[in-house]
Amino acid sequence: MSAEVEATTRMDQSGTVPDSNVPDDVRIVFLGGLGEIGRNCAVVESGGRLLVIDCGLMFPDAEMPGVDLVLPDLSYLIDRAHKIDGIVLTHGHEDHVGALSYLLRDVDRPIHLYGSRLCLSLCSGRLEESGVSDRAVLHEMADGEVAQVGGYTVEFIPVTHSVPFANALAIGTPQGTIIHSGDYKLDPAPVDDRRTDLGRFGELGREGVRLMLGDSTNAEVPGYTGSESSVGIALAETFDELTEYRIVAASFASHLHRVKQVVDVAVAQGRKVAFLGRSMVRNVGLAREQGILPLSDADIIAIDDVYDYPPNQVCVICTGSQGEAFAALSLLSSADHRALKLGDDDAVIISATPIPGNESNVNRVINNLTRLGVRVIHSGGAPVHVSGHAAASEIRALLEIVQPDAYVPVHGEYRHMVANEAIAAEVGIPTRYVCLDGDALTITTDSVSVQRRVAPHGYVYVDGIIDDVGPGLLHDRRNLSEEGLVVAIVTIDGSTGDILGRPQVVTRGWVHAEESGWIIDEAADVVAAALESLNSGQRRDIELVRRRVRRAIGGYVDQRTRRRPPIVPVVMEV
Amino acid sequence: MSAEVEATTRMDQSGTVPDSNVPDDVRIVFLGGLGEIGRNCAVVESGGRLLVIDCGLMFPDAEMPGVDLVLPDLSYLIDRAHKIDGIVLTHGHEDHVGALSYLLRDVDRPIHLYGSRLCLSLCSGRLEESGVSDRAVLHEMADGEVAQVGGYTVEFIPVTHSVPFANALAIGTPQGTIIHSGDYKLDPAPVDDRRTDLGRFGELGREGVRLMLGDSTNAEVPGYTGSESSVGIALAETFDELTEYRIVAASFASHLHRVKQVVDVAVAQGRKVAFLGRSMVRNVGLAREQGILPLSDADIIAIDDVYDYPPNQVCVICTGSQGEAFAALSLLSSADHRALKLGDDDAVIISATPIPGNESNVNRVINNLTRLGVRVIHSGGAPVHVSGHAAASEIRALLEIVQPDAYVPVHGEYRHMVANEAIAAEVGIPTRYVCLDGDALTITTDSVSVQRRVAPHGYVYVDGIIDDVGPGLLHDRRNLSEEGLVVAIVTIDGSTGDILGRPQVVTRGWVHAEESGWIIDEAADVVAAALESLNSGQRRDIELVRRRVRRAIGGYVDQRTRRRPPIVPVVMEV
Repeated sequence: MSAEVEATTRMDQSGTVPDSNVPDDVRIVFLGGLGEIGRNCAVVESGGRLLVIDCGLMFPDAEMPGVDLVLPDLSYLIDRAHKIDGIVLTHGHEDHVGALSYLLRDVDRPIHLYGSRLCLSLCSGRLEESGVSDRAVLHEMADGEVAQVGGYTVEFIPVTHSVPFANALAIGTPQGTIIHSGDYKLDPAPVDDRRTDLGRFGELGREGVRLMLGDSTNAEVPGYTGSESSVGIALAETFDELTEYRIVAASFASHLHRVKQVVDVAVAQGRKVAFLGRSMVRNVGLAREQGILPLSDADIIAIDDVYDYPPNQVCVICTGSQGEAFAALSLLSSADHRALKLGDDDAVIISATPIPGNESNVNRVINNLTRLGVRVIHSGGAPVHVSGHAAASEIRALLEIVQPDAYVPVHGEYRHMVANEAIAAEVGIPTRYVCLDGDALTITTDSVSVQRRVAPHGYVYVDGIIDDVGPGLLHDRRNLSEEGLVVAIVTIDGSTGDILGRPQVVTRGWVHAEESGWIIDEAADVVAAALESLNSGQRRDIELVRRRVRRAIGGYVDQRTRRRPPIVPVVMEV
Repeated sequence: MSAEVEATTRMDQSGTVPDSNVPDDVRIVFLGGLGEIGRNCAVVESGGRLLVIDCGLMFPDAEMPGVDLVLPDLSYLIDRAHKIDGIVLTHGHEDHVGALSYLLRDVDRPIHLYGSRLCLSLCSGRLEESGVSDRAVLHEMADGEVAQVGGYTVEFIPVTHSVPFANALAIGTPQGTIIHSGDYKLDPAPVDDRRTDLGRFGELGREGVRLMLGDSTNAEVPGYTGSESSVGIALAETFDELTEYRIVAASFASHLHRVKQVVDVAVAQGRKVAFLGRSMVRNVGLAREQGILPLSDADIIAIDDVYDYPPNQVCVICTGSQGEAFAALSLLSSADHRALKLGDDDAVIISATPIPGNESNVNRVINNLTRLGVRVIHSGGAPVHVSGHAAASEIRALLEIVQPDAYVPVHGEYRHMVANEAIAAEVGIPTRYVCLDGDALTITTDSVSVQRRVAPHGYVYVDGIIDDVGPGLLHDRRNLSEEGLVVAIVTIDGSTGDILGRPQVVTRGWVHAEESGWIIDEAADVVAAALESLNSGQRRDIELVRRRVRRAIGGYVDQRTRRRPPIVPVVMEV
């Protein structure tokens, strides 16, 4: 690594990387997706110009209570908006496109977006809702098409995934070709016959690939991920066993190949199909427009007309396969859906597996459906789902075909990226780095090097409209849920030191006012008694009063309940 | 069902079942374990005398923040303590014995406990800690031994499970034999050669079994659960691949066969063994005393002496396989353990699978260990764990051997019990009921009938020392974690209506005081302004003031942050 390159990697005072001043060097900055599943976003930089790869969001986990969404720290891009030549999108999943509206909101110029027709359709709804579609210039890319994005060429290479028309990217840079795998699997029999284009990967490999960035999600899973068409076979067998039932099938709304397979089996059995869930209805509309889901109007019925047909002549396809609280399947499981009430006549097929973190919600939905008398078929007992991500043998196969000079696992938690790197080591890829969000790679004529944590990489939590959610607030919220909060309030005449009125104790989550109101009353008495023992001079010392209140009520809380809520003493001085 | 029996099943005014007045009838009351995994407890009643089967606890899930433990509603037993002939224990897991100390605390007479030697040893520690061991009279039962418990006979039938010396029970009652399967699997090659005694089950079946209660945990899993000895083979292969590493193996502390298999492989490789985690150290002591874990003193080292040996001559066996926050493996993964710091030299084998609900914690531990450079082997990638519960084919096999007149699935969530019942239907068991906690079965000479929800069955949450945790408090806590809490305080002179001093706003979880203190200040200003617009007469109306405060700050909170914390207006009248 040359001294000039070294210089470019030092943090400047704002904590971000100064722009490269060696024109021919190429840098990749990882803003998200390396260390978590979600908020995928990377930036290719060369000659002061930026090409962004994906701009996704992450869904919050149980450690982030009250958070709606988690974004990459987009300040890196917003500060450099005038240098962005374009954003290239591998596919239309939220973890790849869901942060676009937040980025566009904060830039003052149009941004060029490149992706497959379906990918752009899937993200344009949200851009419209957010009122930022006028800041996006959309470029539809056909399979194999090459975009000229500023000084970069970007070739869209078909790959198979759990959404149609997903792509890998081959990016032409001053330092040669960089391949980004996108999210992929090597499905030998995809539903649309659009296979991952291994031939093209092979050609690129023979021409020479400086760097490959590869999906890590299933790197720990040995062998091959099953073919999507195997699910079609399992669905047909499952439908054959359920000829007496109305069938409700839940899947991801963007998994339009899965939806197509359910539709095909249902129609072949002479069932009418109804769609349920806002995103399902919207995506099915897109898919029919774009020829992804051939389905005659005569085979579709409205959800309100389901009861016009015998149960075994209907199939409902709905959202909620992850047990999401307000999605269709959850409402059905709690008998809260307006149009449809499930019971003994119904069978539910959950054509998905729970994403890590969603297991408990899915479990609750299955138990509730079972309680309604519904027969539930899920991937735990029948092969009605396969993943959309390459398992270890597929990763190995792709790496052997491409044989890049250097390899960096992306799209995964740390454990997945380490497993992915180990596969590359076995294949013999000479240069490999396990990177994390905020890291940058510099590619020079001679070398690929990594600079650690040089770009902003913190989680940006969205909750309402202000951007102040940080570790402190999340810690408070987690703590509140475990212990609750006790506020003890006294009013003091600042001049005389007299206690005015009766102290009040307000709590949530410590004890329950309706069930244990006497404890709250007793706590107020304890505060009053503690202050009576102070003389009027001491009572004029507000800090002393506050300490005394805290100690008195803290002692009472511990002795009476053996719980440890945080205690806030409030002294109103009048 | 006769009129007399009908009469016995109506609820009395306390909401519990009046005792049977038909001497020869037998009733089974389910206090816990039917509808959840945990807090297993059932009561056999006849002639006014009670035999209790197990008395377990449940660990709280994410919907129960701040809760330490969940118990059955033991009031049913406490109210009838003078009628209890004894408590028979199937095995020593917490979900079967963990509530005993809470029951014994509240009874005023000694209770007779029956179980295998190991089972009684595993629970006696907690009884001692709770200071109630003087209220327990322990009866050690050998395999196949029959206890006379009041008017009941109880035979302890060996079964294989994930703790040694587990038993099924054959209970002799005036209405014939009732079998309780306990937690079991049909392991053809258990580590201790103590197989589930199918011969004895067959004899009982030929003699006639009125009712069988059977473990449902894995009823949805097709086929057979693997043999525990298969884990030994996988462990040996795994150890062979890790000859350069120090090995840390995590498992349940009560799974002493698993511990034995790890120990055997480690010692065969010439490694010294150290034990880590309080319950691991305690249980290993018991197991060595009782001949379950033959291990020479020369092969054991203290955890503080680990660094006296090269890494590849040491194996540490520890707790924390479920990612529990304060267990050994979690501390190791966050580099917080005093005695042991893991790194490149270490491999961790997690010889367990996450219990539903623990997936995220285990995932975090694996990621953290990987970040330390540790090589992690877990059941997702290697066969280093098998379940202790029978899968569908084993349940079927046992039912075909026993052929009971009636069958009730126990020990499971609703989905598991429904799957278990379906197996019994296939086998052709004529009478089957899916019951839930609080249900009772009545066995007469002619019939087995079910009475729904006749016994107290609510979750009893333990948090500290008062028993007031209910749905209201848990709802508050969940809500606090999502939204936080805002308390707005004003002091008013009750006679003049003057506002005294400045209003104060106290919050946790809405916005963070350090990051957004200005919002809290602004909120206080909004409250002050809202009250200024009231005249002095209005201000003497405390309810009006409270409403005005709530509305003013509620509007501000919404407009400024688009968040929805609960708002508590406090008016201090002086």
